[in-house]
Amino acid sequence: MRATLSWLLHDWLDVGALTARPRFSEHTRETFESVLDVSERLARDKFAPHNRLVDLQEPHFDGERVHLPAQVEQALQAYVDAGLSLAGVDAEHGGMQLPFAVEMASTSMFHRASVGIGAYVMLAHGNAKTVQAHGTAAQIAAFAQPTFEGRYFGTMCLSEPQAGSSLSDIATRAVPDGEGSQDDPLGPRFRLKGNKMWISGGEHDMGENIVHLVLAKIPGPDGRLVPGVKGISLFIVPRKLVRADGSLSGERNDVSLAGLNHKCGYRGTVNTLLNFGEGRFPVKAGGDDQGVPRGPGLDGQGAGAIGYLIGQPGKGLAAMFTMMNGARIGVGLGAVMLGYAGYEASLDYARNRPQGRALGAAGKDATQPQVPIVEHADVKRMLLAQKSYCEGGLALELFCARLIDEQDTGTPEAADEARLLLEVLTPIAKSWPSEWCLEANSLAIQVLGGYGYTRDFPVEQYWRDNRLNMIHEGTHGIQGMDLLGRKVIMENGRGLMLLGARVQQTIGQAGEFAELKEQARALGAALGRVAQVTQAAWQGGDPQRSLANATPYLQAFGHVVLAWLWLDLAATAQRQLPQATGEQADFLKGKLAAARYFFRYELPKIEAWLAVVESRDDTCLNAQPQWL
Amino acid sequence: MRATLSWLLHDWLDVGALTARPRFSEHTRETFESVLDVSERLARDKFAPHNRLVDLQEPHFDGERVHLPAQVEQALQAYVDAGLSLAGVDAEHGGMQLPFAVEMASTSMFHRASVGIGAYVMLAHGNAKTVQAHGTAAQIAAFAQPTFEGRYFGTMCLSEPQAGSSLSDIATRAVPDGEGSQDDPLGPRFRLKGNKMWISGGEHDMGENIVHLVLAKIPGPDGRLVPGVKGISLFIVPRKLVRADGSLSGERNDVSLAGLNHKCGYRGTVNTLLNFGEGRFPVKAGGDDQGVPRGPGLDGQGAGAIGYLIGQPGKGLAAMFTMMNGARIGVGLGAVMLGYAGYEASLDYARNRPQGRALGAAGKDATQPQVPIVEHADVKRMLLAQKSYCEGGLALELFCARLIDEQDTGTPEAADEARLLLEVLTPIAKSWPSEWCLEANSLAIQVLGGYGYTRDFPVEQYWRDNRLNMIHEGTHGIQGMDLLGRKVIMENGRGLMLLGARVQQTIGQAGEFAELKEQARALGAALGRVAQVTQAAWQGGDPQRSLANATPYLQAFGHVVLAWLWLDLAATAQRQLPQATGEQADFLKGKLAAARYFFRYELPKIEAWLAVVESRDDTCLNAQPQWL
Repeated sequence: MRATLSWLLHDWLDVGALTARPRFSEHTRETFESVLDVSERLARDKFAPHNRLVDLQEPHFDGERVHLPAQVEQALQAYVDAGLSLAGVDAEHGGMQLPFAVEMASTSMFHRASVGIGAYVMLAHGNAKTVQAHGTAAQIAAFAQPTFEGRYFGTMCLSEPQAGSSLSDIATRAVPDGEGSQDDPLGPRFRLKGNKMWISGGEHDMGENIVHLVLAKIPGPDGRLVPGVKGISLFIVPRKLVRADGSLSGERNDVSLAGLNHKCGYRGTVNTLLNFGEGRFPVKAGGDDQGVPRGPGLDGQGAGAIGYLIGQPGKGLAAMFTMMNGARIGVGLGAVMLGYAGYEASLDYARNRPQGRALGAAGKDATQPQVPIVEHADVKRMLLAQKSYCEGGLALELFCARLIDEQDTGTPEAADEARLLLEVLTPIAKSWPSEWCLEANSLAIQVLGGYGYTRDFPVEQYWRDNRLNMIHEGTHGIQGMDLLGRKVIMENGRGLMLLGARVQQTIGQAGEFAELKEQARALGAALGRVAQVTQAAWQGGDPQRSLANATPYLQAFGHVVLAWLWLDLAATAQRQLPQATGEQADFLKGKLAAARYFFRYELPKIEAWLAVVESRDDTCLNAQPQWL
Repeated sequence: MRATLSWLLHDWLDVGALTARPRFSEHTRETFESVLDVSERLARDKFAPHNRLVDLQEPHFDGERVHLPAQVEQALQAYVDAGLSLAGVDAEHGGMQLPFAVEMASTSMFHRASVGIGAYVMLAHGNAKTVQAHGTAAQIAAFAQPTFEGRYFGTMCLSEPQAGSSLSDIATRAVPDGEGSQDDPLGPRFRLKGNKMWISGGEHDMGENIVHLVLAKIPGPDGRLVPGVKGISLFIVPRKLVRADGSLSGERNDVSLAGLNHKCGYRGTVNTLLNFGEGRFPVKAGGDDQGVPRGPGLDGQGAGAIGYLIGQPGKGLAAMFTMMNGARIGVGLGAVMLGYAGYEASLDYARNRPQGRALGAAGKDATQPQVPIVEHADVKRMLLAQKSYCEGGLALELFCARLIDEQDTGTPEAADEARLLLEVLTPIAKSWPSEWCLEANSLAIQVLGGYGYTRDFPVEQYWRDNRLNMIHEGTHGIQGMDLLGRKVIMENGRGLMLLGARVQQTIGQAGEFAELKEQARALGAALGRVAQVTQAAWQGGDPQRSLANATPYLQAFGHVVLAWLWLDLAATAQRQLPQATGEQADFLKGKLAAARYFFRYELPKIEAWLAVVESRDDTCLNAQPQWL
């Protein structure tokens, strides 16, 4: 995997070119590689050995404390000690100031080793980035910086028991915390009350603090919450209270654990139901510690979680999308790396497991020794499928990361183009690996047969872990609606056109290689179909009908994006092949075989998905609940 | 589900017509329904309540005994007490002499309630049927009858650690057990030595005995095993020894537990590695109990498991296929019912979970109350998909059961036709639900969102349980090879032609309904494609290349079979609809909607699978291991 990672970063994405930009001018290809070396070693030594442990010893709550295996904190501490939590942070704040693409390449190795442990890193990072993007200097110093430094952890608190995918229905209330609350140095101070569901990393004793980013509604003058997402604001709610200078006051905030969710997989990451402001940990006016200003609380007795408004009131969802978009790409990366881990495990097994024989013209010769199962066409099919899903998925996530670098450090035109491409690609980056790298995990189990179904091998755990990814950070259905209902039509379809131009560019380049002409043609046709079908979906009004098949649209779109990436990778490989020998030639032929697999076995699937979108099929829309 | 089950049995398969046959003449539609009533109640009361328990308390071995939750034995005892283990057995042997289709309908409800507990029933039943088909009268009396009566359990011992899918490589040896071993009243007596892997129900304390059916090889005069499947014989190896009259002698046979397999799911069924004949429980010549004749054993000290040859030497695999074919349909049924259980759970959830709102021309109105998620098109899509997979799968399994009844009680021509159709359909009956009802379980999780991923709801367990079904009783890859490599070409393709004629008949009947003309046309085209592609696959010699894409062929073939069944069901529903009102009309409209879903969303998928078979695509075949 390391070879592929470096090949994607350097030979395909040319991240070395970023060192010409002022922000990355201290870096070289060698510094990038050394970060990957450290990451690979740490992931292998500190994360991977505990991945089964965190599955078997899932978090438990004894009524007072949440218990995680000690190895989780040790692994995360090793990550912090290596400075990796500061990978993307400005040098002036102690960071490495690395490109995001390199940071993500580093992260990928931790996800591969243990996604359940790695998720804490991803959550903390996304949290701090959001505070950095929307917070005041004081908020950044008090909350983002310690998180970047690995001293604090972070969460995102969106869902509520009655509001899962429908954020407009959240009922957590935030009211100003008495006199002077608008003048708190850490930002307008509120008291929050409500219940938040599915909060990963919501409660544990690791690190010095947990920074919750919480969506809540500020009631209007009539005391009622504003319906819809317009009423949503974003708050920083620390688990332990901090003084204006960012130091811990020693008090707990009124945030308590209502319970843990016991999951099918991804058990390394504790998942919680949190009660904000129920009065379990009152923060009284004039309490023991005067370091944190506060009002009397919601009941006069200190009930209500202290929270600081971040950004503008009513703009909370937009601010949270800084974290959500990052998290969506992060989820996609996690899905990819679970798939990758399974691919590697099943490849290793297939190379070493003798079973069966080749079929000759006269059938099989039972007197001959058995062959390793990697020799069987059907096993190779399952391995090539995994390879095409996982390496393609990795290319997709790194491509998105590279766009984020462009957005951050490119010319204004390039940055704007990158922003728009990211809008269109984010639903794919999140959903596609969630679906297909899960399928990769299922194929990995299949390669191992009965062994794959046991806990003696890691692949069944990868499969269980990966099943979460189609659900959190916006379900598959939500991603489909986002893509077809918003992203491909926003700015008059400019994002889709930009993407189309990039695809055409690849088609042109690949078409120069005789070996890739067939694939270039197929991609051109597929692109045309997507454009055609996108238009057809929106013909005739009635958005409900247009969007009734948003998920099949998402699936088809994803496969076309992946075909594009594979053709681009294939062109890169084809370009290098004449100079390559030995292992490097095999490496490149592997990329070409995976690309060919994707074009022959996968891309043709799009027609079945597109047909229902194009015809605006109403079978599902019009099915009556009482028929089911 | 009960309504669908009865509709399939009576309105579609007309099992009532079987009562005109001598074997079933004591039965009526009412006696069939009363068996289903009892089964439904027992499954609900005695099996379903413990399904999560058997997942959480997986079997464990303390070095002496295997421990299962007591509820497993209680559930199975209740099943036996109701006489259900004797459902298909001749009246003269105390049985109900029911058609297999009705027996399977009964079984289906236990699988839905708890597949892990239900599997013991299926294994015992298949085991006894095999003894009945190939054993002597004494063997049947000693081993099959007590199993039918629910006093004994049964296993099938095929795989070995070094021989999973490749049975020709089994190394378990069976040597005659000394003087007089050929004259044992229970059949030629052998001593077996070897290791058997993946043995479900291989060790536990339930019932009075466990009858192992064991594949082993009898060495030739040179002491060597015959390579290939030609050398395989089948043996009855009881866990506890029995006397010639079938009574227990009080001795253990030399079969010992080497370990348990710890599985991802399906934990209700203990899965074992068994050592035969390692001398742990020696059966010495002239031992404590003279009731069981025996020789001195492999080492002169009684090592070697006593086994009785069943059928002819070297014909063991053919005999075992009696059990295998039944087990394959049984696995398919289990997969269907896991899917069905998930469908019902997710439908129930979708009807009761408010979330989100309909999309109007002006977007969503957040001031309106939320709607149950069953109102959303994408949720209906996921429910219709599940419905089409699971009800279609149930139709498939019952259709196969009905063919078995035809084989057993039809005219010679009808029986032969049924036999051949079963040959072709068995790989589909096994593989298709294993793949698509697993997908149904994944969709059920998706409908429940985060809740579906937790142990608070049953759907994640169904999904884990179902993942086994693509592996055991012949993997997906094996089923594909069986279908394309053997079944569709055997007897000059007569099986495929027979199936084609049945499909054409349905097309003709459905075409009479204007509402089904489009579907009838689509099925006709799909059938033509399958015929064409089957031919193309076998063009040009080189069976290895013909079979390189056997799995995509299996997938496409399966989808066409299901489309056929759905069209047949739709024609039945369409015929009844004019007379139906209220709930019954909704029921029939549900069938029509599921059929339409299948034709619009699923059947078009076949083209991508068929394309690589037709072109004899060699991408996978020729991929080199070092490229991966």
